[in-house]
Amino acid sequence: MTSCLSTSSAPRIGSLVRGDAGLPEDAPIAVVRRGALVESVHRGRLAVCDPDGEVLESVGDPEAYIYARSAAKPFQALPLVLTGAAEDFRLTDRELAVACASHNAEEPHLAAVRSILKKSGLTEDDLQSGAHPPLYEPEAEKLIISGEEPGPLHSNCSGKHAGMLAVCVHEGYETTTYREPGRPLQQRILDLIAEVCGLQEDEVLVAGDNCGVPAFALPLRSFATGLARLTTGNALPDELAGAAMRIGDAMREHPFMVAGTGRFDTELMDSTDLLVKGGAEAVLAVGSPEGWGMALKISDGSERAVRPAALAALGSMGVEVPEAVSSVRGLHGETVGRIEPLI
Amino acid sequence: MTSCLSTSSAPRIGSLVRGDAGLPEDAPIAVVRRGALVESVHRGRLAVCDPDGEVLESVGDPEAYIYARSAAKPFQALPLVLTGAAEDFRLTDRELAVACASHNAEEPHLAAVRSILKKSGLTEDDLQSGAHPPLYEPEAEKLIISGEEPGPLHSNCSGKHAGMLAVCVHEGYETTTYREPGRPLQQRILDLIAEVCGLQEDEVLVAGDNCGVPAFALPLRSFATGLARLTTGNALPDELAGAAMRIGDAMREHPFMVAGTGRFDTELMDSTDLLVKGGAEAVLAVGSPEGWGMALKISDGSERAVRPAALAALGSMGVEVPEAVSSVRGLHGETVGRIEPLI
Repeated sequence: MTSCLSTSSAPRIGSLVRGDAGLPEDAPIAVVRRGALVESVHRGRLAVCDPDGEVLESVGDPEAYIYARSAAKPFQALPLVLTGAAEDFRLTDRELAVACASHNAEEPHLAAVRSILKKSGLTEDDLQSGAHPPLYEPEAEKLIISGEEPGPLHSNCSGKHAGMLAVCVHEGYETTTYREPGRPLQQRILDLIAEVCGLQEDEVLVAGDNCGVPAFALPLRSFATGLARLTTGNALPDELAGAAMRIGDAMREHPFMVAGTGRFDTELMDSTDLLVKGGAEAVLAVGSPEGWGMALKISDGSERAVRPAALAALGSMGVEVPEAVSSVRGLHGETVGRIEPLI
Repeated sequence: MTSCLSTSSAPRIGSLVRGDAGLPEDAPIAVVRRGALVESVHRGRLAVCDPDGEVLESVGDPEAYIYARSAAKPFQALPLVLTGAAEDFRLTDRELAVACASHNAEEPHLAAVRSILKKSGLTEDDLQSGAHPPLYEPEAEKLIISGEEPGPLHSNCSGKHAGMLAVCVHEGYETTTYREPGRPLQQRILDLIAEVCGLQEDEVLVAGDNCGVPAFALPLRSFATGLARLTTGNALPDELAGAAMRIGDAMREHPFMVAGTGRFDTELMDSTDLLVKGGAEAVLAVGSPEGWGMALKISDGSERAVRPAALAALGSMGVEVPEAVSSVRGLHGETVGRIEPLI
């Protein structure tokens, strides 16, 4: 047999790659180990800011943009309080929390969304949240067994959509076009995100989110700053500060309504005084009443790296958190590896 | 409102990170775009080698190790042919292909696995492949509706386990300990992987795979070299070359048996003359009868990046392949983004 390894030419490292110009600077933030080796690596970006925009800690480039995705939901819910819709429709704190949720479609979530719609004089037929199976596996299995197709109510975003519809009803905006950028509701949300995060409107970039409403992109640092403000009310005008505190308090008092059984957002809010909201493609938004906000993005969009990276970062901020390292189990129940933060 | 962005100190880039010493050199290999921005980035490593170990193309460090995971299955099936078990038990090419599979648990897969066991004088009770729901969603739903729990037969690795058991029966090895490293079967597999890939036995690192058999780690370049040899028989002793060709031909003649409906391995073998086998944590092994092997690892383990990166790399090797860019669809069916290779 020919020995293969003695005859090779110098390898052309990256010879096939077009280059990474324009990609945001990040750093390895968590690893998946198996046996003696690192099997997979997750890179990420992170910024911790105070309400004045001071960067307290960071990983990677804090000025680079991220799509906040569902981590923007607490901001998207602000008009519910600011317009008076929440008060006039007598929305409960549980309902406000589900309006900020990426929920599991467990029964309490569905009941709260139905209630927002009913109080606004609407029905499930008005929801344009799109349909996907419940995020919570047992609920997804129940639907399969019943033969019922998933509907817009089961969408993890249905609370946000119900909240948006409630604002439209309250303000006299057309309900059928509530998802469209440029229409009054979405313009108002864009203005608010820019204001809370200390940006000009044109510094917030807009694309389409998977559920059909605008998705917002902004610098990591601005988002972390906005989270510090949203959680404390600091550096915000009084009315906006009040609305932010109402939303934040509702989420922190009802962590289950924001996500559900087995979910990291719920777990972390249950065990700390933090405001926590995750978003698709591995985004996590955290706000501390002690006066800082943290925005985290796992560069590759892998949800499994959010928990270890976030817990380690929060630990370094002095928050008492659960163990950040978790085991990877094989099909016989044995430990085959572990996921570890590099923070 | 205080402007936040004018008062900040210089950000401490990576101030929280412990450093990436020891992590393999890789490069951005695919991106997920949304609107005007890159939302997520996948890095990767890739080596294309000829049967003599010459590196023809590479991304990242070709000497760094990867766990081959299920991409090693064609190597793990070699003893089936080499010992004469395949011939003596009259295994069909479809059965040899399922012995190399990470299958969908569709009916033809289950039937072939049952047949290997029966021909070896064994039953499903001898399988120690662990249980998980069928990879193919409609089959998983059927099980849920029927109330049947997934069993070892449904495991995507059940063909590999059945093949291992067949060798044990043929060689008179204990069947109950077939998964254990150091026992005759697993030692024989380790020796073969080292030999085909041009390594010393102690240069192949062993850990536990999720299905309970050894998982093998080796340098990316050695794995690509082994794939070039496995597919062509070049640089291998005659007996080994013959066994390799028998395995490779069975897989390429029965792409469905290696994976199943909607799977990339099956799609790519259906449309080319390549040998293709994926592995967990986003590994892809490819062999070309033209005389080269390609080993690809997406650093973060994300399956979604395998297809675009592999198709672009194969395109650059002169293989006629389908479009590498794919759309990301929202819940209303609209295009919200796309996954693009950087190769």
